Amino acid sequence: MNKVAIVGYSTAKFRKSTDKSVYELACEPSMDILRSSNLAANRIEGLLFSSCSHDLYGGAILSEMLGVSPKLTCRIDNLCNSGTIAISTAYSYISSGLCDSVLVVGAELYNSPGSKLIWDVSRGHFTSSIYWASVFARMHMREYGTTEEDLANIAVKNRSSSVNNPNAMFNKPITLEDVLSSRKLVDPIKLLDCGALCSGSSSVLLVSEDLARKLGSQPVWIEGIGHQTNCASMAHAIPEIFKIGSCKLAASHAYEMAKMKPSDIQVAEIHDAFTIMEIMACEDLGFAKIGEGASYALHGNIAVNPRGGIIGSGHPIGATGIAQVCEIVCQLRHESGVRQAGNCNVGLVHNLAAAGTSATVMILRSEV
Amino acid sequence: MNKVAIVGYSTAKFRKSTDKSVYELACEPSMDILRSSNLAANRIEGLLFSSCSHDLYGGAILSEMLGVSPKLTCRIDNLCNSGTIAISTAYSYISSGLCDSVLVVGAELYNSPGSKLIWDVSRGHFTSSIYWASVFARMHMREYGTTEEDLANIAVKNRSSSVNNPNAMFNKPITLEDVLSSRKLVDPIKLLDCGALCSGSSSVLLVSEDLARKLGSQPVWIEGIGHQTNCASMAHAIPEIFKIGSCKLAASHAYEMAKMKPSDIQVAEIHDAFTIMEIMACEDLGFAKIGEGASYALHGNIAVNPRGGIIGSGHPIGATGIAQVCEIVCQLRHESGVRQAGNCNVGLVHNLAAAGTSATVMILRSEV
Repeated sequence: MNKVAIVGYSTAKFRKSTDKSVYELACEPSMDILRSSNLAANRIEGLLFSSCSHDLYGGAILSEMLGVSPKLTCRIDNLCNSGTIAISTAYSYISSGLCDSVLVVGAELYNSPGSKLIWDVSRGHFTSSIYWASVFARMHMREYGTTEEDLANIAVKNRSSSVNNPNAMFNKPITLEDVLSSRKLVDPIKLLDCGALCSGSSSVLLVSEDLARKLGSQPVWIEGIGHQTNCASMAHAIPEIFKIGSCKLAASHAYEMAKMKPSDIQVAEIHDAFTIMEIMACEDLGFAKIGEGASYALHGNIAVNPRGGIIGSGHPIGATGIAQVCEIVCQLRHESGVRQAGNCNVGLVHNLAAAGTSATVMILRSEV
Repeated sequence: MNKVAIVGYSTAKFRKSTDKSVYELACEPSMDILRSSNLAANRIEGLLFSSCSHDLYGGAILSEMLGVSPKLTCRIDNLCNSGTIAISTAYSYISSGLCDSVLVVGAELYNSPGSKLIWDVSRGHFTSSIYWASVFARMHMREYGTTEEDLANIAVKNRSSSVNNPNAMFNKPITLEDVLSSRKLVDPIKLLDCGALCSGSSSVLLVSEDLARKLGSQPVWIEGIGHQTNCASMAHAIPEIFKIGSCKLAASHAYEMAKMKPSDIQVAEIHDAFTIMEIMACEDLGFAKIGEGASYALHGNIAVNPRGGIIGSGHPIGATGIAQVCEIVCQLRHESGVRQAGNCNVGLVHNLAAAGTSATVMILRSEV
C-alpha cells in the first residue's frame, strides 16, 4: 500500500459574517498552499471539496477558480465530519494509485443548510443538535456524577487556548462564572457550552510517499484512519451512545491500522461542538476511564484542543475536520508557536457528525 | 494493490414522475442487491450515495434506512458523473484497504437541482446544457460534415435498443422522420436528440478480491479507471473540446491502467445526453477516427449503448453513471437476455458532467 503524507496545510481566519461566497472562502487557504508548495498547480491530480452548501459541481468550479485541472474531483457531504471523510477519501485515491496528489478543501458559510437536522423525523421540531447534547449531558451527569461546572471548565479551557490561535473566531478568554451564568438554552447546556457556527475555510495537500520525498517537504504521515456510522437519527443514536457509539468503533479501527494505543497519542483535536462532547470523547478514545473524561480533558497528559477546539475556533461545518487536521499537522511539525504542545510527533483527530451518529478518528505522525 | 470486483448490480425502472422520495428510490435497487447477495447487510463496510438532491447527510440516512452500519459513508456530487466518481471512490476505499465492501447507490428525482447550470456565469441565461450541445453539434457539422440525419440516427438506434430494456423510461421505437420533425429546441438540436431528465436509481456492490472469491459471486473486475476535469464553465470548455477534451485524457488514463487499447473493448455505455455527445465520444475514446464517429456509432464493431443509453433510458443525474456500469456488468456476465451484445468479456463506461468539462472512463472485465 502506498504511504500518504500531508505536505501542505492552511486555515483562513474563522469569522461570523463575510461578504464572500463559499468558493471565495475556499480559495483563501487553497491559494496559500499552492503559493507555498513546491508542487506546481498543474501537478494537482485530485481536488475534494467538503461543504454542506447547496452549490453543486463545487469540486470542478473550485478547480477552475484555482487554475488546477485535476483528474478526480467532487464535492463530499457528510455534515460535520465531511472534512475528515474528504481527507480519508484523498488518502484512498493516493494509496490506491488513482492520484499522486490531492488538495482537500473545506468551506462553509455561517448560515449553511447543514446547521439544521431537518431530515430526522424522530427529532420532531427539535432540529438543532443542542437537544442531542442536552440528552448526552443529562445521561453523563446521572451515570457518572459529571457536573455543570465540569462542562463549563471545558469551555474555559478551550476559550483560553483559542486566545493563542490567530485563526480562531474567539480570541478573548472567559471565566467559569461567565459560562455558568450564560443563558441556559436547553438544560443543562448553556450558551457558552456551545460551539458557534461560523464562516471559514481550511485546506490540506496530500501526496504519495514518492512525491513527498521529491518535494522535500516536511511530511506528516497518515498512520491510522477509523470511521464508523451507526445510524443517522436521534431515535437510534440515544440507546447506543454509551454502548457501541460510533466513536469507540472508529477509534479501534484507527488504533489498529496505526498499530498504536491511546497512550501513544501526545496531542489531540477533539470534536467539542458542545462541552459534553469533549468529555465523552476523552473516554471513547480510551484516553480516560469511563466517567473520568471531565478531569482528563483538563489535567490529562495529552494536550487536547490546543487551537481552542470548536468552542474556541468556531464551527464552519464542512471546514471543521480539515481545520482540526491542520492544527495537528502544525503541532507535529512544531510550527505552533506559543500554543505548541511540547515536542510531540504523534497526534489524533476526532471528528463527529450529527451528534456522533458518524465518527472519524485519524492518527498522524511526523518524523521530527 | 488490492483488486476490486463488482459482485452485485441493480437498476430500478426509470420513470418521469413518482411520489417517492429520493431515499425511497435509492432503497429500491439497494434492497434488491442486499436480498440477492451472499454478503450479510452488517458486512457492508462502506456506502456511497450519489445524488444532486439538496438533502444533506444522505449516506448516513440511507444507511439507516437500509439497516447497514458502514464504516465510511458520504454523499458525492459532481453533477452527471457523480455516479462513476462514487464508484471510483468505492474502488479506492477497497484498493487502499479502508473497506472490504462498498455499496454505491445513485438516486435522483426528475426535478433535481442538478439540471440547471446556474453557477456558470459565462453562460448568461443559457443555463440548460442544450446550449452547449448546440455549440458542439455546429462545430462538428462545420469541421467534419456531420449532418442532422447523423444526429437523428443515434436517437433512432438508442430508442430502438431501449425497447429491450425493461428499466428504460422509453420502450417505444422512433423513426428518423420522428426525430427530424420533432421540435427544434436550439438549432440544430431537436427534442428527440435529447436525453430526458427522469426519476431513477441504481446500485452496485463492490468488494475486494478475497471477499469476491469467498462469496462465490461472478466477479466483474474494475481494470481501468480514468478521470479528468479540465474546467467547469462554458467559456473554458468550448476552445478545448476538440483538442484536449477531458474525455480524451480520461480515456488515456483508463487504457493505460487497464493495459488495454480501444480495440480490446467489445461493449460500451456512452454518455449520450445529446446525440452529438455519442458521436464525439466514439472519436474521443479512440473507437473511430476523428470525424467518423457518426457512422461508427451505428456500424462499428463495438456494441454501443445496448440498454438504449441516456436517450433511451432517461437521465436520473446522480444514478446515470451507476446505471451505465450496471448495464456493462450485466453484459459481461451474459445476463442481458434479448439485448445481450454477444460473447463479450471487456466493456467500457463513458460518463460526462456539465458537457464534458469532467469525464470518467472505466474499463471492466469478466472471467466468462
